[in-house]
Amino acid sequence: MTPGLFVSFEGPEGAGKSTQLARLAARLAEAGVPHVVTREPGGTPLGTRIREVLLDPLLNIDPLPEFLLYSASRAQLVGNVICPALARGEAVLCDRYADSSLAYQGAGRGLDAAFLAALTREVTGGLVPDLTVLLDLDPALGLARAASRGQPDRLERADLGFHGRVRAGFLALAAQAPQRFLVLDATRDPGALADAIWQAVRDRLSRSPADRSSPHLSGN
Amino acid sequence: MTPGLFVSFEGPEGAGKSTQLARLAARLAEAGVPHVVTREPGGTPLGTRIREVLLDPLLNIDPLPEFLLYSASRAQLVGNVICPALARGEAVLCDRYADSSLAYQGAGRGLDAAFLAALTREVTGGLVPDLTVLLDLDPALGLARAASRGQPDRLERADLGFHGRVRAGFLALAAQAPQRFLVLDATRDPGALADAIWQAVRDRLSRSPADRSSPHLSGN
Repeated sequence: MTPGLFVSFEGPEGAGKSTQLARLAARLAEAGVPHVVTREPGGTPLGTRIREVLLDPLLNIDPLPEFLLYSASRAQLVGNVICPALARGEAVLCDRYADSSLAYQGAGRGLDAAFLAALTREVTGGLVPDLTVLLDLDPALGLARAASRGQPDRLERADLGFHGRVRAGFLALAAQAPQRFLVLDATRDPGALADAIWQAVRDRLSRSPADRSSPHLSGN
Repeated sequence: MTPGLFVSFEGPEGAGKSTQLARLAARLAEAGVPHVVTREPGGTPLGTRIREVLLDPLLNIDPLPEFLLYSASRAQLVGNVICPALARGEAVLCDRYADSSLAYQGAGRGLDAAFLAALTREVTGGLVPDLTVLLDLDPALGLARAASRGQPDRLERADLGFHGRVRAGFLALAAQAPQRFLVLDATRDPGALADAIWQAVRDRLSRSPADRSSPHLSGN
């Protein structure tokens, strides 16, 4: 097996990202692949503090500072967690990554996509996942699932129009990078989804890093 | 009198920025000039939360996320406090602004100056102060003054070499924009400093906005 694989999970709240990430981590553990599980925003002491700020339902945060806060958490995570793990040859499973900023702050909030992409390249040093699992879900269904788990946070309370734009943003990103994205219907049986994700991961683990679709340090 | 004047105060900890800002606010009040006093990081509910994170001595924050956090606080402050006050024709007195990022994260931490300047233009919408008061002070003296006030925060604990680069960074910024900067020796008598600052403010208040040295929305 080839180590140093970077896998991100994207999609709306309620799509099952955490469940599928945990299932993949279990399979990697069974297969003896060392791996790190992390998330955005968060994953570092700084990121955890930023996460508390971003998810505070009482705080007014404009779109641009919102994007900058996600980027600050991302910069700290890439430098202190993701890059060191990849350099050690480990797999990294990340619950959300840069595509979330492009979908939520770009397509959702209307910030300029070229600006977001350029700053994201600076913030990540051009680090792009080898595989991005997009769990696609109708926004109305995702919000209902999330709401059933308790009080909605700041993002979950945004309106359906916003979440519809976010979904379209994710799908557009996937269409631009079909080699990197695995788009799955989140309403499918969780076991079937886990199998599909494991197949995509095994496929990439069997390749040498140079042959993977998204070299870690590319410009896009 | 001409309303809508933006004045920033820059310099190291211990230089007397807060004292001089309060004195200027008192003189503006005496003169009947409506004004807003604010600061960076902070000045909004979001900025206050970001300030707590940035000044936490126990938190490891890399230079790039540090800059992004200051920028997030700045974006929220410009959009919600500074621009609305200027639009109402009021004076805005700000304890630190974008020059601090260029001096601390650029000259001090070594981030690329062109990148910082470009992102700062995006974050501020190109808003530049009409007058920037730089209270220049030998770093060793400033740190001694700050330390005498209690436990040093995260920034104050950085080494003297860092603070020396920050001072040089501020002076270089002042040299590039001599019309905007008023550079004062912070060891002078506080009353004399207050007089010099008031003279510079009165001078700018007497001009029409179009004739001021730094139009609010310039590209640099």
